[in-house]
Amino acid sequence: MSFHDKFISDRSKARSHSHFTLNQTAKTTKPHSNPIFISGGLPNPIGFPIDEITVNLTTSPNPRPRFVPAATLFSKPGLVEFPDITENSTRLSQNLKILKFAESLETATNGNGGQLTLERSLQYGEQDGHPQLKKFVTALTKRLHPPKLDEKDWNVIITNGGGDGIHKAVDLLINPGDHVLVEEYCFSPSFDNIKSVGGILVPIKLDYDEGLDVTGLKRILENWDEAKQGPKPRVLYSVPSGQNPYGVSQSLERRKAIYAVLKEHGIVIIEDDPYGALAYESYNKKFTNGNSSKSLNTPEKAHDESVDSEARESDISKADIDHYTSLIAPSYLTIDDVGLVVRIDTFSKVFSPGLRLGWIVSHVNFIEKLSLYTSLSTRAASGVSQLLINNIAHSWGLEGWLRWCLLLRNQYLERRNHLLAQLDKLDQSKITYITPVCGMFVSALVHFDKIASSSFNGVTLPYQSRLVELGIEEGVLIVSGSNMAASEELRQTAKFIRLTFAYEDPDLLDEAIKRLGKAVDRLFEEGEIKQK
Amino acid sequence: MSFHDKFISDRSKARSHSHFTLNQTAKTTKPHSNPIFISGGLPNPIGFPIDEITVNLTTSPNPRPRFVPAATLFSKPGLVEFPDITENSTRLSQNLKILKFAESLETATNGNGGQLTLERSLQYGEQDGHPQLKKFVTALTKRLHPPKLDEKDWNVIITNGGGDGIHKAVDLLINPGDHVLVEEYCFSPSFDNIKSVGGILVPIKLDYDEGLDVTGLKRILENWDEAKQGPKPRVLYSVPSGQNPYGVSQSLERRKAIYAVLKEHGIVIIEDDPYGALAYESYNKKFTNGNSSKSLNTPEKAHDESVDSEARESDISKADIDHYTSLIAPSYLTIDDVGLVVRIDTFSKVFSPGLRLGWIVSHVNFIEKLSLYTSLSTRAASGVSQLLINNIAHSWGLEGWLRWCLLLRNQYLERRNHLLAQLDKLDQSKITYITPVCGMFVSALVHFDKIASSSFNGVTLPYQSRLVELGIEEGVLIVSGSNMAASEELRQTAKFIRLTFAYEDPDLLDEAIKRLGKAVDRLFEEGEIKQK
Repeated sequence: MSFHDKFISDRSKARSHSHFTLNQTAKTTKPHSNPIFISGGLPNPIGFPIDEITVNLTTSPNPRPRFVPAATLFSKPGLVEFPDITENSTRLSQNLKILKFAESLETATNGNGGQLTLERSLQYGEQDGHPQLKKFVTALTKRLHPPKLDEKDWNVIITNGGGDGIHKAVDLLINPGDHVLVEEYCFSPSFDNIKSVGGILVPIKLDYDEGLDVTGLKRILENWDEAKQGPKPRVLYSVPSGQNPYGVSQSLERRKAIYAVLKEHGIVIIEDDPYGALAYESYNKKFTNGNSSKSLNTPEKAHDESVDSEARESDISKADIDHYTSLIAPSYLTIDDVGLVVRIDTFSKVFSPGLRLGWIVSHVNFIEKLSLYTSLSTRAASGVSQLLINNIAHSWGLEGWLRWCLLLRNQYLERRNHLLAQLDKLDQSKITYITPVCGMFVSALVHFDKIASSSFNGVTLPYQSRLVELGIEEGVLIVSGSNMAASEELRQTAKFIRLTFAYEDPDLLDEAIKRLGKAVDRLFEEGEIKQK
Repeated sequence: MSFHDKFISDRSKARSHSHFTLNQTAKTTKPHSNPIFISGGLPNPIGFPIDEITVNLTTSPNPRPRFVPAATLFSKPGLVEFPDITENSTRLSQNLKILKFAESLETATNGNGGQLTLERSLQYGEQDGHPQLKKFVTALTKRLHPPKLDEKDWNVIITNGGGDGIHKAVDLLINPGDHVLVEEYCFSPSFDNIKSVGGILVPIKLDYDEGLDVTGLKRILENWDEAKQGPKPRVLYSVPSGQNPYGVSQSLERRKAIYAVLKEHGIVIIEDDPYGALAYESYNKKFTNGNSSKSLNTPEKAHDESVDSEARESDISKADIDHYTSLIAPSYLTIDDVGLVVRIDTFSKVFSPGLRLGWIVSHVNFIEKLSLYTSLSTRAASGVSQLLINNIAHSWGLEGWLRWCLLLRNQYLERRNHLLAQLDKLDQSKITYITPVCGMFVSALVHFDKIASSSFNGVTLPYQSRLVELGIEEGVLIVSGSNMAASEELRQTAKFIRLTFAYEDPDLLDEAIKRLGKAVDRLFEEGEIKQK
């Protein structure tokens, strides 16, 4: 029995699968050197009607048409090479050709072995993902979160997106009746997933600085009474970077302290990290006047008003990328020396959620079981989703990928600062916020402390829920914190609403926060009337 | 409790999911007419780096370069319209442009509302699939398998491919300990799936004409002893068209007889139909001489040697399509009047398995639960996979889609006839076959009747397994029938090997069958030695 067996659910352990096209043969069998394949169930590629795909890429996340000569973007030698830039476009763009068969592709790409063909990606693929794509996410993981485990002890598996990753990790680790440690407020579909396999949520306190509270975690584990409460939890589910909803990240020190507790009590962490690459500097009010959407791009140059945004983008240096990656909080993988981490990653936030593509990094003993479940359920992720990410990633290279992530998070950083500046203008006695350093969200704290739950218009509901209703009337859609609670008590006592700065343009964010201010004022008026 | 509740597994019943961004509001709430969205977690589309995709399609499943003027393909007015044909290509091809935003796309496609944009397909999508694609598969279902249920009582859900469909159907219907009726030899990953949720296989006899045996099914159900055996099965898993491995299809009469038994005993059928569109005429030896790959295309014209293949393809008429669709065996949906069918369909065999895209048609009460599980697991199928199929399907139209399927199955029909003609040349006292009328496979019957299981080279194994080994030595890879058995007894007594005609080119199929003949001869030599 391996170290990991005690963590693997009975459901996962009971599965078996051996494909009927595979055969065990006697050792004396002498295979023919040139066999003909009339065994498997592969359709003939003549039936794939797609001969070629041309993908027109933008290499900068900027929706406005721009007129910069492409060459200037790549003026720094030795940094990032982008082949085949179309210079006569009004945008910085690149054409990526994807051919059906490899013979022609090799010619077209000068033998770049990392590219996938249509023939390959439209055919049945490996359940763990195409090897080329696994190679890329392995390299990305080593660059940002180098695992402490021996190279031979960890592996990756491609998933059908972060949600599929959560589902498969929960399936892997949780038996009916198991208690599972979670953050008191979090992405509630994960709670539903845990409950759907019979798991029981045990909420852990969050603080406003770094999220998961070590003392709270310790207290629950040390006071656990197995006779009364059943077996001690053996799984923690956490969003340690850009916690959803709070937007805070656990520091390396916090992670080390939490990991020590996990190791002591024999607990596996499902590290759900969809937002990690959207990492920001602290919010500094002097960097923005709150009225202009012309704000910083690379933060250290934000004060230099003479640098226009095009020049800034063409000016991304290795040092800029290193500064950016230093902001990305390191995974528990970088601390874990026994294999207690199941890390769930995704392409959704830095490339596209519609691809339904992500990956899990974990100990090989866990990956093996995740792979078996994949072979019996989803079989593999979409081949064209894999092809798009893979061929773009191999064309951009690792540093080119990070450059894209940096430029994208610059756009989000600008929006974050803009939204916070607008919130700063509201009545601070009524509403403040937790400063987010990662992700897409701001949790605004509504200081309606005296009555956490109350009656509005004759209906009893938490005041955040009433604020959501008032927002609907004023024309600003927000999330009630109570909806993200891990227990009914936490639902009643939630003190925040969640806002996103990702989707709307800055001028609409301005208007949204003005409307929110009106809704907050109405909430307090209603509350005062009630309190009389 | 609905009629369907008794079929739904406890696992499925126990799930719940309500997304935290949705809010129940008081009836008195007056929504703002122009709300701003700062609630949900949608990434900004500026972060999707793909501006445009151009897909070069072939409209005929023929790998050889051809030089027919494109116009001749569409000479018949009123049949199928293919816009934007590139005439100066050496192949019959079509360019399909896919733009990021709808404004431009509407211009490009003259307001064709069925097309998906990149913005839409790269963003989070509906868990049941994009409405446009659901519309297409609904139309296709109505055209080929018009459900007998009222329109309001059935629905479709897009899946991540046939395997995902099987997994979700099995999850929906089977509790641990349930007995599940299956075909005695079948696609064994489905067996593994049933077993993985605790189901127990109950094999039903297959015949060589139409597959699932009604008498065998009745006998098992009528002799079921609940006291001894536990509750009677309430699920049948069947591949009724192009049964895998036998390649036979249940006639409408057979289906009606089976359905009557299911209805009497209260049993739901999981109808797994990946091959249905690859439907063929009976094999008629006079249609082929077995040496030439120049064989029939549209079968009724096969005797007319003066018609070359290009002319035949340009000559596809409405009547040809109607003849073809008349060969496609009708789904149990066309018989079922109470909602006992979960039909699993897929794009894998007529378009591409790498897309991981399929759909399920069933009663709305079942679809609702499949949708809930989807929201907690895969979330949705790949948006680019959906976009590719959807935009091509809407560009080709329903009859254009069927034309593509007809041309593709013509290619497979030619290969089937070719393979059977080669098998006809082998020693009929040693090896014959079940004539397939659908799908990709031929089951060859090895007449090694006296010893079903034996010892070869000192190892005891079923003789099909030994034949597989001899095939590996002779250079022809085949599937041992024993690998597809629903029980250990059936494994020992399997009388067939499975061959595919789909993948290899005709000249390699010739060589493969010659090699198979040698392996069969060696098997009989070894057997004779043993029998002395």
